[in-house]
Amino acid sequence: MSPKITTELLKQLRQVMKSPKYVQEPVQAYIVPSGDAHQSEYIAPCDCRRAFISGFDGSAGTAIVTEQHAAMWTDGRYFLQAAHQMDNNWTLMKMGLKDTPTQEDWLVSVLPEGSKVGVDPFIIPADQWKRMSKALRSAGHDLVPVKENLIDTIWTDCPQRPCKPLITLNLSYTGVSWRDKIVALRSKMAERKVLWFVVTALDEVAWLFNLRGSDVEYNPVFFAYAIIGTNTIRLFIDGDRMMDPAVREHLQLDSALEPEFKIQVLPYGSILSELQAVGAGLSPKEKVWLSDKASYALTEAIPKAYRYLTPYTPICIAKAVKNASETEGMRRAHIKDAVALCELFNWLEKEVPKGTVTEIIAADKAEEFRSQQKDFVELSFATISSTGPNGAIIHYKPVPETNRTLSVNEIYLLDSGAQYKDGTTDVTRTMHFGTPSAYEKECFTYVLKGHIAVSAAIFPNGTKGHLLDSFARSALWDCGLDYLHGTGHGVGSFLNVHEGPCGISYKTFADEPLEAGMIVSDEPGYYEDGSFGIRIENVVLVIPAETKYNFKNRGSLTFEPLTLVPIQTKMIDVNLLTEKECNWVNSYHQKCREVIGAELERQGRHEALGWLIRETEPLLRAQ
Amino acid sequence: MSPKITTELLKQLRQVMKSPKYVQEPVQAYIVPSGDAHQSEYIAPCDCRRAFISGFDGSAGTAIVTEQHAAMWTDGRYFLQAAHQMDNNWTLMKMGLKDTPTQEDWLVSVLPEGSKVGVDPFIIPADQWKRMSKALRSAGHDLVPVKENLIDTIWTDCPQRPCKPLITLNLSYTGVSWRDKIVALRSKMAERKVLWFVVTALDEVAWLFNLRGSDVEYNPVFFAYAIIGTNTIRLFIDGDRMMDPAVREHLQLDSALEPEFKIQVLPYGSILSELQAVGAGLSPKEKVWLSDKASYALTEAIPKAYRYLTPYTPICIAKAVKNASETEGMRRAHIKDAVALCELFNWLEKEVPKGTVTEIIAADKAEEFRSQQKDFVELSFATISSTGPNGAIIHYKPVPETNRTLSVNEIYLLDSGAQYKDGTTDVTRTMHFGTPSAYEKECFTYVLKGHIAVSAAIFPNGTKGHLLDSFARSALWDCGLDYLHGTGHGVGSFLNVHEGPCGISYKTFADEPLEAGMIVSDEPGYYEDGSFGIRIENVVLVIPAETKYNFKNRGSLTFEPLTLVPIQTKMIDVNLLTEKECNWVNSYHQKCREVIGAELERQGRHEALGWLIRETEPLLRAQ
Repeated sequence: MSPKITTELLKQLRQVMKSPKYVQEPVQAYIVPSGDAHQSEYIAPCDCRRAFISGFDGSAGTAIVTEQHAAMWTDGRYFLQAAHQMDNNWTLMKMGLKDTPTQEDWLVSVLPEGSKVGVDPFIIPADQWKRMSKALRSAGHDLVPVKENLIDTIWTDCPQRPCKPLITLNLSYTGVSWRDKIVALRSKMAERKVLWFVVTALDEVAWLFNLRGSDVEYNPVFFAYAIIGTNTIRLFIDGDRMMDPAVREHLQLDSALEPEFKIQVLPYGSILSELQAVGAGLSPKEKVWLSDKASYALTEAIPKAYRYLTPYTPICIAKAVKNASETEGMRRAHIKDAVALCELFNWLEKEVPKGTVTEIIAADKAEEFRSQQKDFVELSFATISSTGPNGAIIHYKPVPETNRTLSVNEIYLLDSGAQYKDGTTDVTRTMHFGTPSAYEKECFTYVLKGHIAVSAAIFPNGTKGHLLDSFARSALWDCGLDYLHGTGHGVGSFLNVHEGPCGISYKTFADEPLEAGMIVSDEPGYYEDGSFGIRIENVVLVIPAETKYNFKNRGSLTFEPLTLVPIQTKMIDVNLLTEKECNWVNSYHQKCREVIGAELERQGRHEALGWLIRETEPLLRAQ
Repeated sequence: MSPKITTELLKQLRQVMKSPKYVQEPVQAYIVPSGDAHQSEYIAPCDCRRAFISGFDGSAGTAIVTEQHAAMWTDGRYFLQAAHQMDNNWTLMKMGLKDTPTQEDWLVSVLPEGSKVGVDPFIIPADQWKRMSKALRSAGHDLVPVKENLIDTIWTDCPQRPCKPLITLNLSYTGVSWRDKIVALRSKMAERKVLWFVVTALDEVAWLFNLRGSDVEYNPVFFAYAIIGTNTIRLFIDGDRMMDPAVREHLQLDSALEPEFKIQVLPYGSILSELQAVGAGLSPKEKVWLSDKASYALTEAIPKAYRYLTPYTPICIAKAVKNASETEGMRRAHIKDAVALCELFNWLEKEVPKGTVTEIIAADKAEEFRSQQKDFVELSFATISSTGPNGAIIHYKPVPETNRTLSVNEIYLLDSGAQYKDGTTDVTRTMHFGTPSAYEKECFTYVLKGHIAVSAAIFPNGTKGHLLDSFARSALWDCGLDYLHGTGHGVGSFLNVHEGPCGISYKTFADEPLEAGMIVSDEPGYYEDGSFGIRIENVVLVIPAETKYNFKNRGSLTFEPLTLVPIQTKMIDVNLLTEKECNWVNSYHQKCREVIGAELERQGRHEALGWLIRETEPLLRAQ
């Protein structure tokens, strides 16, 4: 992978940073965050401004360009990738390492006195604006909103914003109608005494209306906003998508509906002016509820005294707790996904020794097998198909320049998933198609012990996910190893593969307590730069746990794996497992054999079934 | 224990809340925090205003009195105690439980529109003021500083503020001279470009000047403030304590010193006016560094633009990392403390069956044995000597009304410690002098497993203590049990038994990463209301760990127990321990036997030595 040459682009950007055509006053620094106007993690090509200016196309990162410097902040998953993709104009700021300055501290250290720092107010979340603006002001600088996005001014071949048809989801998938979701939302609004709720996150709009789209690759969402009043619903969406009879029927646009469920459809671009009108019409004590991660532009549309900001919206919290229909859908999706992976791994086992399978071929084959399954829509993220040293690049995606051939001498790591109409999957397996070394097995087994420690953990109701993170690391820590990423993230139900408000991470963020029905990933790893990567990931459902006692009647929770794909026993050093861990593996494999075996049988996939049976032979532990 | 009758006092307080003599405008609510003007946890009798008005004398709690209501917020350690000590005028607000409102939310729910909420600006920390003031303002109320403390106006027999002689500590105890500490502090100030540092916490003043006092029971501190400039030192302290020749010599008050080390001694009460003068003399870009927990009054003395506030001061962080002299002192103190406890437990074993030992007698006996040890100064906190149901009151202190007799039928929990001139101790042991039930042993063993999990944990350099908290709970969680307090706190070196900035707790607070030389407690527990309490506590030192690998050269840490007192093996269900846990207990007991055995021998305490030998017999685990 050769880095993007950015000398000319940076020169152009620095020119527009001073051009009266675009900025009222010259800005000495310009911030290019990762997100779009909805603070999405995955973004449409037209929103990949940070990748355009720097070359670095990982899912998380913030670029800052000053007159002299260009710097990129990203986290441990992307240190290697960013270093490979960026040229010498860029300084990589490794977040999470002790000596890495924050963006604010760095700006203060490099800027001339009284500088202006520009940013697109639609892209920067309000909470970040607040923090950064305060830090800059206290050092004598100013954060200023630049209305026109400066990257767009130099991005001559910027693609169009997508506007693809919508999918309607009926009750058998969602369990709850959009009307009932609106009723529940309004009741949360009444509890907090707010009159208006602004839906800014794309997955929240999609979830609320039981609609899906394909405007953003991997995320079944569509560009839209909504403003929910106590008896009005405004949906801001472009294109002729509202002309589709199925959508009109679904939203009952042509029915004689009670007025409080009548949806008013408005152009996507009119959100700011509509919201400003709402803001201007407020009386004292009337409040508007927004996420504190909504854009600065939309947040500013509401006078400060009228804003009610929370880290997580009631939609975000409701969406995280899956109902019975959603859980059943997720189970079905994971069974189909496991069938596809059994086919893949059986195929790889035969083909890899021939030396003809590259990372890209393996990824394509995985997609091919998935696409044969019912209700397959698309992948849920770019397949991480990586062998040998590429496995240590945590969010690696094979491209022709880096594409390695799988061999019987290297570890292969596949992190992949799909969107099915009934659910979203995300699974990582690490395999060896030859004979792993003792050291590789040792590391794999520590990662497995961490995976089991989380998966089998029992914890009280009300526990936050971050309290479970160390369980995943303990076995690695014992011998001086670790991994530089969180252990798990929330997973949507035919929605974004990463969603809040829960997760399992050493980073202390405002995660909501885990509750039965939430779905998260469990994915510890170990990475040796230049050598190999190991990760074992299941998607797990939070379920009530039966315990011997019940302290203060709080009740306990645990996890049930939804992912049912064998964990390669060849990679396990059984002597490092406790009896309990060994039993966990065996009963997990027994379940894979039963559930996935039956489906492989039903689908007539006998060769893959043979592979499954072989791979789920019980481990034997020396007594 | 009968509750304090507060009807009349509350009536008087509500009168002064409206009296123009004390308040510019009537206040509809008055907040009585726990602390003193230094935000101390342990306070002098004259500062026990919250206990005076409510009867509840636990170490943590905030009272709020409105015209109609009186409410007390406290945490899980004190739910039972507060409920016992307060009369029906008071509502107990159980912090940490899901349905308990915050103080702000509660105030907003009960106050009439446009209320004023008063508080003593010297008692409320600036960060709390800020949070509460903001919340109240957004609901249309005002937080107002009431200069005269309203409790003091109705507290007719309020004791005098103590002003006891000082102790000077030489280099053999402190390892670093106060001059070198000032130099180090000034270098931290230069790094952050601040001109002044205000020392407001009592233990920080004591640590900085290598002085100790006895103004506050259990904490060897004295009432004082200091302001350190780049070349001035002002110490605010009352009484004739500065007339003591030893103190004058120690501080070199009469020496021809370089001007930047010359200490200017000023009256304690002049801190506010002196600080205001500093504030008034500042030029732009000149900053004053304070803890964000310093009082609102002192923080307000510095104009906002000139303040530099941090959660932890450089003194707090430096103080937490013990140097070799301090560590050696802590070791010596813990050996002496263990000798005293071996004597006590040997004595209890003989006396308890006679039915003549009460909780108070046991506590007194513990103090007697400790006071026989060299350099004993005082206890480090009120001894928690509790048997049977009293053990479930987490911070119980026996008083005549509650005093139970120890018996062979109940669990006995002793949490106690002392101040020695060379170190501070804090140890909890849970004993049974008869035959514990299978259930008691089961619970004890889960707590022990948690204790070992933390004590034996290996974790990377830079890990924060809160990431270790779940290790202490995992065995309890597995069977549906838990405890409602943190797992550990920092411990001072002949200073406060609770100190920041590190700790081990599920509560996410801004704890600093653990580093070698820090000292914390490891004290999981289990409490069954009305029945018994179990806690196993050692003070442990953070030390480098040897590991098989060394990921990214970060290095690893672990703990070394400084407390060396046998853990009652009679209470252990050996079958619930893993081999590793069993080995941990045996090697811990081996060390107790060697180190404490040698000291008992040296002190000629042969009977206690016999007890120690018996109590440290290795556990045998069925294979």
